[in-house]
Amino acid sequence: MQKFALKVTRTQNFPEWYQSVVRDADMAELSPVRGCMVIKPWGYGIWELLQRQLDDRIKVFGFENCYFPLFIPMSFIAKEAEHVEGFAKEMAVVTHHRLRNIDGKLELDPDARLGDPLIVRPTSETIIGDSFQRWIQSYRDLPLRINQWANVVRWEMRTRLFLRTAEFLWQEGHSAHADEAEARESTRDALELYRAFAENVLAIPVVAGEKPEHERFPGADNTYSIEAMMQDGKALQAGTAHYLGTNFATAQNIKFQNKDGGDSYCHTSSWGLSTRMIGGIIMTHGDDDGLRCPPAVAPRQVVIVPILRDKPEDAAVLTFCDEILRGLRSETCFGMPVRAFVDKKLTRSADKHWNWVKRGAPIICEIGPRDAAGHVVSFMRRDKLRDGGAMTSETVSLAEFIAAVPSLLVDIQQALFDEAKTRLHTNIRTDIDSFEALKSYFGEASDDGDDSSEAKGWVRCSWSKPTGDDLTKIVDLLKKLKLTIRNAPLDQPASFKRCLFTGQAGVEEIIVARAY
Amino acid sequence: MQKFALKVTRTQNFPEWYQSVVRDADMAELSPVRGCMVIKPWGYGIWELLQRQLDDRIKVFGFENCYFPLFIPMSFIAKEAEHVEGFAKEMAVVTHHRLRNIDGKLELDPDARLGDPLIVRPTSETIIGDSFQRWIQSYRDLPLRINQWANVVRWEMRTRLFLRTAEFLWQEGHSAHADEAEARESTRDALELYRAFAENVLAIPVVAGEKPEHERFPGADNTYSIEAMMQDGKALQAGTAHYLGTNFATAQNIKFQNKDGGDSYCHTSSWGLSTRMIGGIIMTHGDDDGLRCPPAVAPRQVVIVPILRDKPEDAAVLTFCDEILRGLRSETCFGMPVRAFVDKKLTRSADKHWNWVKRGAPIICEIGPRDAAGHVVSFMRRDKLRDGGAMTSETVSLAEFIAAVPSLLVDIQQALFDEAKTRLHTNIRTDIDSFEALKSYFGEASDDGDDSSEAKGWVRCSWSKPTGDDLTKIVDLLKKLKLTIRNAPLDQPASFKRCLFTGQAGVEEIIVARAY
Repeated sequence: MQKFALKVTRTQNFPEWYQSVVRDADMAELSPVRGCMVIKPWGYGIWELLQRQLDDRIKVFGFENCYFPLFIPMSFIAKEAEHVEGFAKEMAVVTHHRLRNIDGKLELDPDARLGDPLIVRPTSETIIGDSFQRWIQSYRDLPLRINQWANVVRWEMRTRLFLRTAEFLWQEGHSAHADEAEARESTRDALELYRAFAENVLAIPVVAGEKPEHERFPGADNTYSIEAMMQDGKALQAGTAHYLGTNFATAQNIKFQNKDGGDSYCHTSSWGLSTRMIGGIIMTHGDDDGLRCPPAVAPRQVVIVPILRDKPEDAAVLTFCDEILRGLRSETCFGMPVRAFVDKKLTRSADKHWNWVKRGAPIICEIGPRDAAGHVVSFMRRDKLRDGGAMTSETVSLAEFIAAVPSLLVDIQQALFDEAKTRLHTNIRTDIDSFEALKSYFGEASDDGDDSSEAKGWVRCSWSKPTGDDLTKIVDLLKKLKLTIRNAPLDQPASFKRCLFTGQAGVEEIIVARAY
Repeated sequence: MQKFALKVTRTQNFPEWYQSVVRDADMAELSPVRGCMVIKPWGYGIWELLQRQLDDRIKVFGFENCYFPLFIPMSFIAKEAEHVEGFAKEMAVVTHHRLRNIDGKLELDPDARLGDPLIVRPTSETIIGDSFQRWIQSYRDLPLRINQWANVVRWEMRTRLFLRTAEFLWQEGHSAHADEAEARESTRDALELYRAFAENVLAIPVVAGEKPEHERFPGADNTYSIEAMMQDGKALQAGTAHYLGTNFATAQNIKFQNKDGGDSYCHTSSWGLSTRMIGGIIMTHGDDDGLRCPPAVAPRQVVIVPILRDKPEDAAVLTFCDEILRGLRSETCFGMPVRAFVDKKLTRSADKHWNWVKRGAPIICEIGPRDAAGHVVSFMRRDKLRDGGAMTSETVSLAEFIAAVPSLLVDIQQALFDEAKTRLHTNIRTDIDSFEALKSYFGEASDDGDDSSEAKGWVRCSWSKPTGDDLTKIVDLLKKLKLTIRNAPLDQPASFKRCLFTGQAGVEEIIVARAY
């Protein structure tokens, strides 16, 4: 039996495998603060690279970065609650602004109670809307397009690193427009930006589409998402974009003088993508040896491990490692300098090697005295670690290696994407057209939802797009199978099968799946 | 009398002038959340450029970025309070994690009260120390060097945009070392990093030195700062670095197995620089027409304003503006592409021009039909807007302009630095050697401290470095004059005058000044 770097494999227990990648790749850990995580350098390094590349795209899209307060007055939330049904009430509330020390014991100072408690932002529509309302006077001020990188807090009862934590990091784009058509177009453009970013930078193929009405963001007219398929077949909602109509504008009085001199409410949109995406990277690209990090977001793309033996040859090995590093210094890939690193830590070479395998550095070199003497580089591609079952490495001259690195990284990025894309397409069933067939395909769900049963993938089927109570009935039936409607993909066929749920004429195709 | 772009000049009323730069340059505004600001695109753009360049330097210094929780359990703070005297108790406290809706009214849910309240981080020594304590086992894990970019909250009674706000953005570096010497060296290196960054990137000359004992960060053995002189002569503490000894390590049990097999406490350091620095940029480089933004952190370095008249020639003007933009696209300055922008907003050209003057774009071009026809560029340097009192602009060929931009930007950066450096050096008095002379030089302070009286600069004098009660007496005397001891500069002479306060032999030179 093959031994892998992780103690548990994906097929043995997918949720445990996930936790062990997060831990063994040194990406994050639970903190002593309930539901909050510490993002460690390797995890945060991926986030920084994701952030920089997404930010560049957001700026090209015409959005400017701002920063709005962490706190939202409870009175703002109350106003929103009057206009918006069904919004979540699990949020962190600040009620005091001072502690006092009584006989060496620290406690809340009752004199420092806030009149209007402050909510730690779960999202920023209301506080940003307050600025929009002041900034927008005339149609000349529109469209207004801003973006914010921030931490947000949503009290979650059951947390999982990156996927669901009380505090997480994200970007939230917000725009206001003079007319509906432009606002709708901007929302769809945001969705397309996410799709292209996920596929081209994170190598995660996604299905972009519209959420069904019961899954809309509270207050949105339409909610769109990109959905990615994890290796256990479950869907991960990896980014959402909302067309908010004039709902928030009405609640917050975001008006402008139109070209005819009258007053109109703005049409607004918002869209967000978070550190949850790092969970998506892990569950898309990880294998039983750990993470395989897409080169475009790998904090170290080429890691050089010197094999040291406390012998005089060590010096030559280290010198040669630095020579490789110097050679790579002027190479670029994905529009940035190649990120190379020599691991000189005082631990065993084998430990270092496996550490980088588990973290998923795309190219790992092991350099011993013979490599140094021969001026050759032995390296392995992390994405093809065990081609044909055996550990594979290649040895080439230094010059060849340096020259090959940029295209190797591009190859690895493409290979990861292709693998995930094939998996996505081969795991969407389109031949299931009755609820009974759906039920028998997915089988009964286990109680904790964390079962490691066989991966099932998604079902793409037609439906009659019922609303209200008719929809609720279907949602409840699906819920019993732990299934949800992910979205209605943007690419729809010209004609439809009968509705899988009602038997009526189909009007739309949807994705049904288990999900994170 | 000369008319300026701002309604109030620096000499008329410096604090009001400051507020008007922040407002008219569209940098930030107060939010409806007490003491919290909204940082607008121009202000945030400066922060992003500052952040990226400081971050690059921090990484070269060997620190890796992480992210730690926003919240700190009150029990952690209580533990710190036992070890650390005099720490601030003004902090935002989260006591509930849910709201409930009773008869349409939103209120705290009493069932969702937290057992251990959570403090919104005012700084992260305790929560990071908790991770350090888990991450550090042996001397092989040392030094441990991490940095965090984050928002922090300190409840301030009197706030001023950028300078003192309840929530602000900063970076905090934290390190743990096996021995004192290395920890001290790292602390001083951080200080030097700040000095070089302030001077080379922000064009702000500073005096780096050690804070007197009563100004130390609670729990620090030594606190160092860089101090900058604002145009009203006041000092701005622009960055601090602390050597924490083994104080925090002892409180939090941050131990390691040393080379001899025994247990030792780590020596730790921390250092931070915040959005307050943006206030420093304004008060160092602003003039009566608004901000003059140092090119290295200017979100737009070259702004092209087309002069449009709703006539057929407009098309040629816009085409030529885009041609200038294209020409600049391949130019770089300070290691980054030149940031150029054509302002096509639908407002009057003169308004646009003055808007960019107030924001302090380093180079502003106004392009009319004659410029377009002659393929020439009329531009002005924002730093020399009124050379000799008159508005000055220059006209050169397109090719000349493109070629000149990178060196012009470098010149402007240098000119701003030189001007500030001359001001700093000519406004440090070294000839005041009695307390009476000090008193008569500074005069009585006005009550609100926001007087617009003549700028006074700093006094550099010798003292005998008293401690305890003797120091307290001096601090109280200075306080009556609204004076503070800023720091003891790192560059000390070989011999000293008598102590200005005690008449005893001097042992150190210090900076005495009014301060923000």
